[in-house]
Amino acid sequence: MPKPGIKVFAPASVANVAVGFDILGFALEKPGDEVIIREGSSPGLVISLITGAGGKLPYDIQKNTAGYSAYRLLEHLGETDRPLEMEIHKKMPFGSGLGSSAASAAAGVFAVNEFLKSGLSKHEILRFAVEGEQIADGAFHADNVAPSLMGGMILIRDNETLDIKKLHIPHGLCVAVIYPHVEVLTRESRSILKPEIPFKDFIKQSGNLGSFVAAMYTSDFDMIKRSLHDLIIEPQRAHLIPYFYEMKEAALKCGALGFSISGAGPSMFALCDNTGVAQDILEQAKSIYKTKKLHIDTYYSKINHEGAIRF
Amino acid sequence: MPKPGIKVFAPASVANVAVGFDILGFALEKPGDEVIIREGSSPGLVISLITGAGGKLPYDIQKNTAGYSAYRLLEHLGETDRPLEMEIHKKMPFGSGLGSSAASAAAGVFAVNEFLKSGLSKHEILRFAVEGEQIADGAFHADNVAPSLMGGMILIRDNETLDIKKLHIPHGLCVAVIYPHVEVLTRESRSILKPEIPFKDFIKQSGNLGSFVAAMYTSDFDMIKRSLHDLIIEPQRAHLIPYFYEMKEAALKCGALGFSISGAGPSMFALCDNTGVAQDILEQAKSIYKTKKLHIDTYYSKINHEGAIRF
Repeated sequence: MPKPGIKVFAPASVANVAVGFDILGFALEKPGDEVIIREGSSPGLVISLITGAGGKLPYDIQKNTAGYSAYRLLEHLGETDRPLEMEIHKKMPFGSGLGSSAASAAAGVFAVNEFLKSGLSKHEILRFAVEGEQIADGAFHADNVAPSLMGGMILIRDNETLDIKKLHIPHGLCVAVIYPHVEVLTRESRSILKPEIPFKDFIKQSGNLGSFVAAMYTSDFDMIKRSLHDLIIEPQRAHLIPYFYEMKEAALKCGALGFSISGAGPSMFALCDNTGVAQDILEQAKSIYKTKKLHIDTYYSKINHEGAIRF
Repeated sequence: MPKPGIKVFAPASVANVAVGFDILGFALEKPGDEVIIREGSSPGLVISLITGAGGKLPYDIQKNTAGYSAYRLLEHLGETDRPLEMEIHKKMPFGSGLGSSAASAAAGVFAVNEFLKSGLSKHEILRFAVEGEQIADGAFHADNVAPSLMGGMILIRDNETLDIKKLHIPHGLCVAVIYPHVEVLTRESRSILKPEIPFKDFIKQSGNLGSFVAAMYTSDFDMIKRSLHDLIIEPQRAHLIPYFYEMKEAALKCGALGFSISGAGPSMFALCDNTGVAQDILEQAKSIYKTKKLHIDTYYSKINHEGAIRF
């Protein structure tokens, strides 16, 4: 019989959010990943079980996002010889653009941090989670990991130093997420982006970002709606997602504040100021993609303020 | 003897503010321009007197920023035949990067609006002031005009539609302004800017802008300080301003939250969290530029919340 352990959940997240490529992301209530940590029988951290991953995730600590993020924390604490067993239960899709590897990394490091009662804050263990996600993603950026671990909507001033700010969330803000079952590889989705952008687009996009942040603090839904436009990334990536513009038009007609690509795609998100609009959008999505004979998953969520939790 | 009229003041302003090229500006308490409007003796608006401009400003309404902004408002009101006399008293330097033409345009339109008791708000007459400044500047943007007219620090989501947001100002925020007497032409200062920017600089600069706005709302001076970096414009323009980097280093050593170019230059500004630091910076500036034998003007100011006023 396995020894008693602790169980944590870390949620999916939406990165980029139309106006903040690589610097903005928020946490969903669901889906997400679960990690269990308990005392092991031999020195060091081992992964004893992975479910929900279809055999795609490695058991090697150094190659597994959850394992590696936890390992880096253990190194930091001087506890790499501590006998620990980790179970990883993937409860969300891979390659969906919803921060699957970030959720695993956040859950892994948070579980160990809680189990060891290290006293470190979530902000203090964030770096290890980002290092964990880096194994899957190749880049060191926190726009999925930070919200998955810490909750809320997080703006990252600087990815290198993980200088972050949790933004104010207006009451009522919620999100409709649509995940069409097509494969978009993050690396590929990133590699198609042009290395330079027109100066005038930079100015316009800056206006949208600045006013979006100001509008969040003032619960100014009208300005959130006017701000949520991506002139830079979305036009370069939309073709990777089947019927993106058709879905976007439908979402905006339903009353979405904004609609764009979640992370590197193929998931799409609509920010909404009320549940009814978000539910309407998901109904529309089901109807549209049914006629296209393309399978989708849909998620309704408020902004998740807590991020990774013990449960 | 001239008929009684009304007298207004519109302040200088600092545009760009390191993180918001063309989309961010704030108003100073001084210097600024004064405009007097009174009833005229023949139909239409005429400029009867200009002082402080060294003969450089045209009396032709269609070519004068204050005159034209007022004229556009009169057109809007169907009052172009109204007999009106305008006096313009320039009380700030031209070509300083402190929004001199914007202050004139703001004063011109505001004076007429007050005199006619049109009932239009400052936001409603903003467009005419921007059109007035456009005569001098060539571009339609509100990053000087909006703060000069409306006060505070203003973020412009979109210059075309003049979709703007007045930001929260943390208590204690103040500014030191240094105007070295060299000529920098706005058009030239603009023409040297590269038409494209590296994508990675766009991301970093977005992080700085977003976190600056968030930090303003939360009075987070530490984050304001970490955010106030211009990776895009300042490196391209600094060489136009004598001893810019020497002055910047001195200002940061004094404790400035940030230091950069005001508008198109040559003025420089330091945002500070207290008066003492701002005064120290101005003393340093006097000392530095004295050894360089370059004449400067210096201004200390809080953020001016009112903008154009009747007095």
